[in-house]
Parts: sequence; C-alpha cells; structure tokens
Amino acid sequence: MNIDLAFSPYELKKKDLQGKAVVVIDALRATSTMIVAFENGCSAFIPVSTEKEARERVASQKDPDLLLGGEREAMPIAGFDVGNSPRDYRPQKVRGKVVVMTTTNGTRALLAARKAAEVFIGAFLNLSALSRRLEEVGREVIIACAGDEDLFSLEDAVCGGAIVDRLEKAGVPLSKSDSAMAAKVLYEYCESDIYGMLAASKWGQYLENIGMGKDVRICAQIDSSKLVPVYREGKIFLVR
Amino acid sequence: MNIDLAFSPYELKKKDLQGKAVVVIDALRATSTMIVAFENGCSAFIPVSTEKEARERVASQKDPDLLLGGEREAMPIAGFDVGNSPRDYRPQKVRGKVVVMTTTNGTRALLAARKAAEVFIGAFLNLSALSRRLEEVGREVIIACAGDEDLFSLEDAVCGGAIVDRLEKAGVPLSKSDSAMAAKVLYEYCESDIYGMLAASKWGQYLENIGMGKDVRICAQIDSSKLVPVYREGKIFLVR
Repeated sequence: MNIDLAFSPYELKKKDLQGKAVVVIDALRATSTMIVAFENGCSAFIPVSTEKEARERVASQKDPDLLLGGEREAMPIAGFDVGNSPRDYRPQKVRGKVVVMTTTNGTRALLAARKAAEVFIGAFLNLSALSRRLEEVGREVIIACAGDEDLFSLEDAVCGGAIVDRLEKAGVPLSKSDSAMAAKVLYEYCESDIYGMLAASKWGQYLENIGMGKDVRICAQIDSSKLVPVYREGKIFLVR
Repeated sequence: MNIDLAFSPYELKKKDLQGKAVVVIDALRATSTMIVAFENGCSAFIPVSTEKEARERVASQKDPDLLLGGEREAMPIAGFDVGNSPRDYRPQKVRGKVVVMTTTNGTRALLAARKAAEVFIGAFLNLSALSRRLEEVGREVIIACAGDEDLFSLEDAVCGGAIVDRLEKAGVPLSKSDSAMAAKVLYEYCESDIYGMLAASKWGQYLENIGMGKDVRICAQIDSSKLVPVYREGKIFLVR
C-alpha cells in the first residue's frame, strides 16, 4: 500500500487525491473534539470556512438541532454554542445535534481533502480503529495534517506517524513517501510519552498558556474511541 | 538562540526573515555542488530562476569567465557548460569562473531567502564549519530546506536537523520551533548512516535510477569542507 503524508493543507493541495483515502488530523484539537462529540451522541459536523458562513447557515435553516461551533486563535467565538474544546461537547449539549463548525486549521484541511475517494477523521483517540479501517478500505492513503496556518505542526505529524506505525505493525506492506517515513520516525521518538510531546509542542504550550491545558490531556487519550467518522458531501458523520 | 526551520521555500516565504540568518540547504545536490565548486577554485554563483534568464545573462555580459550551470529534472541543460553534479565542477573547468546557475529547488530556496540579514550555503559537506559560523554570527537562525517542488524532502530536513544538533553539542542554548525539533529527531535517527538515508530518500533513489548514484556518495561526505559560502546581493561567494 502506498502511503504519503502532507504536513499542511498547502501540501495536500499539491497532491493527487483521486481514488485515495485521506485521513484528516488536527490532533490539538478539532478532530479529537469531533471524536469526543460523536462518543457523546453528536449526529454530525458541517465544516465551513468562515464565522459568517457558519452563522448564515444556522440562521437560514432555523433547525433547533443545529449548533454553532468553532474557534479563532483557540478561543470560543462570541454567540456560538460550542467552542473547539472537547469539554464543550457534553452529552446533554450535543446529543442528536448537528454542529456547523469553523476552526482555523482543521476546516482548511478538511476542505482541501474533498477530492479524495474517502475522507476519514483521525486523532490519537481513534488510532487503532482508524488504522483497521484503512486496512479494510485498501486504497492508497494520504495523511493530511492540519498543521499550523499551512506550516508544520509537531502533534499532527506525530499522529500521522502513529498511523503508519499501526499499519506496519498490522503487517500491511507499505511503500512510504519521504514525509510518511519522517513522520514514523517522529512517532517512534515520541511514542513513550505522547502527552509530553503534545504539551511540549508550540500549540500545546499555547493551549496551556490560555488555560486549556486539560484539553491537551484529553487529546492524548490513545485509542479511547473505536469511532472512525467519515467526511462525505460536506458532512462529517458515523457510518454504522 | 531561536532556531526555526522551513521544510520548503513556500514555508520560508511565510516566515519573518528580518534580522535573521538563513541557511539554505539543497543537500541533493545544489548546495553540495556549490561547496565542491568553491573547493575547486570557483569564484561565485549567480542563482537565477529560469533557463532563459541564465542564457540571457551570460549572452549579454560576453565575459569568458562566466559559465552556464544547472539542471532540469536532475539532467544537465542542453548547451550549458556544467550541470548540477559536483563531478562537473572540476578545478580545470571552474577555477576563477562565475557560474550563472538555475536549479529547480535550490534556486527557489535561495530567492525566497533574500530578505534575511545573512544567507549561508549549507550541506552535509560543511556542517561543522557552518554551525561555528552561525554561532559567531549570533543571530536567530532559520534553516531553509530546498525541498521537492515546495514539498518536504527527507535529505534536507535531516541536514537541517544536523545543524541543530551541532549547535546544541557546541553548548549553544537553543529555543527550537516544532519543525526544528522534528528535524533534529530525524537527524538523530539517521545519524549513523547518512549515506543510507540519502540513498533511501525519494530524490536519492531517482538520482541512482538515472545513473547519478556517485553524486549521492559525494553529497554524504560530512565535514569534507570548511567553506561557508554566503549569498549577498544576488551572488554566492566566499568571504575571506
């Protein structure tokens, strides 16, 4: 199986996605938060680029099951129902709801992935389930790191490397690109202390500084979920 | 000392270079080739973006000491005096000459670095000398990997990581960005077999396949040179 990795949405846009399976990773925090939300009964996410688009979408539909979610510079947006912290997505808040979501990097990566044959949501939380899903699907894989404003971010690269590692440990013969090889090396280096890596990363430090350090611990809970959300026709949801 | 790293010219363009020292690395092969050329008595390089620009520059100046150099897809350009192989730059060919040079990735990285306070040429060949120079200069450092068509390339990232490693081993206190941290981890992983890493990289394999495998061995000769060329006002040369 060919496996490649884009460190940012910019890199993803330069790759040919046709017929491939893309895994979008925004480990701190968007894709981790989505997995927590699905565990808590959330129905779906609709990623949109801008705050305005999110507000218009929700206003035009007048659906009580629609929530506004997202962040700018990691902070909740005024008037939105939920931010980008997994702790916002409690069962009583999100059960049965569809969240129209806008985040800086996660949304950009999702939108850049749209031309792929299949798009999956990945994080440390669903590593093993996700890797099994990729194995079943059997397509060429491109891991799409959300990164940081179209630049490299450590946590997404390490999480991407963990997927490469899981597939290899499952005996899947892989032909790795330079970036997939590099990500796997980074994962091996950090494997024994994923929380420590997250906390030491630029974004992890920023979250700690603004009082969101608890989120970093939640995003480090490896394999706490068996859910593998998909992104199809503009919507993220679970396929039963 | 703050140290950051751009995996590609695209990433470099997104960073603030003002007042900083930038090291441009195109380990396979442009910056390695330049160092070999300087060792063999070459006077200077003038990097230009296009083949046409290179031809016009040489034609307009009618200077017998100007040579045309460069590659497209790693192959020499028809009618050019030298390609991008270090083996082309023999003393009898390049002594006292100025090479107007166009290469796919190396040139792009150099041009993207122009706004920095100082720009140095780096490769495995001059690792230790380069690191000492950065220490003397004392500015914030950004390592600029030439990459592969604005995507990640393993060999440049590992070489960048080697510079981070050299500075740390020299006792320079570093504050590393996510990418500088990642590059150092990659270097530590590959340190015992730099030639093996180069040969296994996508570009190293390509060079081997087109019969340029000897160049990969030359580019792996760690610390074979004490020269640290600079790039100033459009020209790469040695400062005595």
